[in-house]
Amino acid sequence: MPFEQHTQSLIERVESTLDAWLPAEKSQPESLHQAMRYAVFNGGKRIRPLLSYASADLLELDHAKVDAIAATIELIHCYSLVHDDLPAMDDDDLRRGKPTVHKAFDEATAILCGDALHTLAFCGLAQSGISSTSIAYLAQACGSEGMAGGQALDLQFESTRPGKAEIEHMFSLKTGALLTASVMLPAIEHRASDDPMLVQLQRFAESVGLAFQIIDDLLDVEGTSEQIGKPAGSDAELEKASWPILFGVEAARQRAQELVDIAASSLNQLGGNTEGLKWLAERILRRNF
Amino acid sequence: MPFEQHTQSLIERVESTLDAWLPAEKSQPESLHQAMRYAVFNGGKRIRPLLSYASADLLELDHAKVDAIAATIELIHCYSLVHDDLPAMDDDDLRRGKPTVHKAFDEATAILCGDALHTLAFCGLAQSGISSTSIAYLAQACGSEGMAGGQALDLQFESTRPGKAEIEHMFSLKTGALLTASVMLPAIEHRASDDPMLVQLQRFAESVGLAFQIIDDLLDVEGTSEQIGKPAGSDAELEKASWPILFGVEAARQRAQELVDIAASSLNQLGGNTEGLKWLAERILRRNF
Repeated sequence: MPFEQHTQSLIERVESTLDAWLPAEKSQPESLHQAMRYAVFNGGKRIRPLLSYASADLLELDHAKVDAIAATIELIHCYSLVHDDLPAMDDDDLRRGKPTVHKAFDEATAILCGDALHTLAFCGLAQSGISSTSIAYLAQACGSEGMAGGQALDLQFESTRPGKAEIEHMFSLKTGALLTASVMLPAIEHRASDDPMLVQLQRFAESVGLAFQIIDDLLDVEGTSEQIGKPAGSDAELEKASWPILFGVEAARQRAQELVDIAASSLNQLGGNTEGLKWLAERILRRNF
Repeated sequence: MPFEQHTQSLIERVESTLDAWLPAEKSQPESLHQAMRYAVFNGGKRIRPLLSYASADLLELDHAKVDAIAATIELIHCYSLVHDDLPAMDDDDLRRGKPTVHKAFDEATAILCGDALHTLAFCGLAQSGISSTSIAYLAQACGSEGMAGGQALDLQFESTRPGKAEIEHMFSLKTGALLTASVMLPAIEHRASDDPMLVQLQRFAESVGLAFQIIDDLLDVEGTSEQIGKPAGSDAELEKASWPILFGVEAARQRAQELVDIAASSLNQLGGNTEGLKWLAERILRRNF
């Protein structure tokens, strides 16, 4: 059965893990637990968990073996969105068409909600009995030399004018590191560290991660607010370092295609069941998520 | 040699681990790395790391065996202070007599700084090769049913009037959970989970944790700004749930003494080298840190 026909059941799979991990809304402190569930169950497309499951297919692992990885990475993604939306950061009022956490609750609750989701991610992963090597790998992907560092560079670039290499480096941290971890963690946990497939898989994941962010920037320039679920054109308004704004829309589209081609060629070299990863990469380029 | 004479070298020990874990100030993103080091190296008294080393003495473990635990817990503590000080939270301008991170840098950097320290804590712990059981134990102590949950309850109590049991439950999460983890983690990692000593050690740690927060509240009522390194009387101003404000200064002092007595009796039942833990508990009561 093609991967596409599995996606709904895979999304249900990760959401059922997330539901089991998140404390009940009625358990104290209620407002915090409500905010955590609001932040996680908000119509997210679960692209990162799907990448983990597609990676499991390639590695011939049961999906159950990556449930914890998929849920952990989605929690890290959700925490980062809650904090990124804060007034002192991107100051977004809407996320996927709904009020952001600090709007639906308040700013203090949003800060604590992000913090608690961040901790829960590591808690769930550690409780799944995964190796400490894999936990360390994920932590490196999200810290000051990964996702959080990319976010800091993004803020820094609002006052400078970065070159292409700089902006792509920032993207590779801000968005790429966690997307890469989605693909790589199942392999880090279940393959030897010198397995040659890891290099190709990483090349695939990094290309897709970079393409993803360039297309995100393109949508901000070209999309309607309805399509992207938040005000369009906010990058320009915030003077964000945006690939298409800095280097042109057509060049951005070409660069995204080039990256997806690199991703595809990495998959071809991998062999095995790459159908899910291929399908996700194409969907990311078309970005009809 | 009495524990007191070791404290300086133990503080240097944990600070050297923290220094090794924290990226250099000159490495990109510079402002984030500067903020992280500013938040960590700010004259903190390292009470939690000292508790971990004193616990190692009791367990007859080399101090080297708890270096990662001590550093991790201090990073969690530092991240929580950075976020607690934010304008939307306690809105503190000073911490230990110096500008708080969002004052010395900016609010966005402070949010990311807390996030990155939070991740680094788990990264360092996982890289030390500790068991995933211990990582999960720490995560439970800091999440929505631990430290972050206590912080959320604290905010909630600004608009209600909690009873003694409620306020002590909030303290046991907000302050107690991480202090308890400082003492317990070396034992969780190095003793069997059914070792009867764990129960007494936990009783000691929880009592000290609760006493610590009551004395913190007392200092806020009675201390000068110079003594406590931030504006005195801020709890009353913020309408914080404060033990002495709600139930009286003298009763608060008695409750703290009672808790330290419980702590002492737990130590007596433990036997072995409890000298460091005893000395730290007394110092916490006198709070001349």
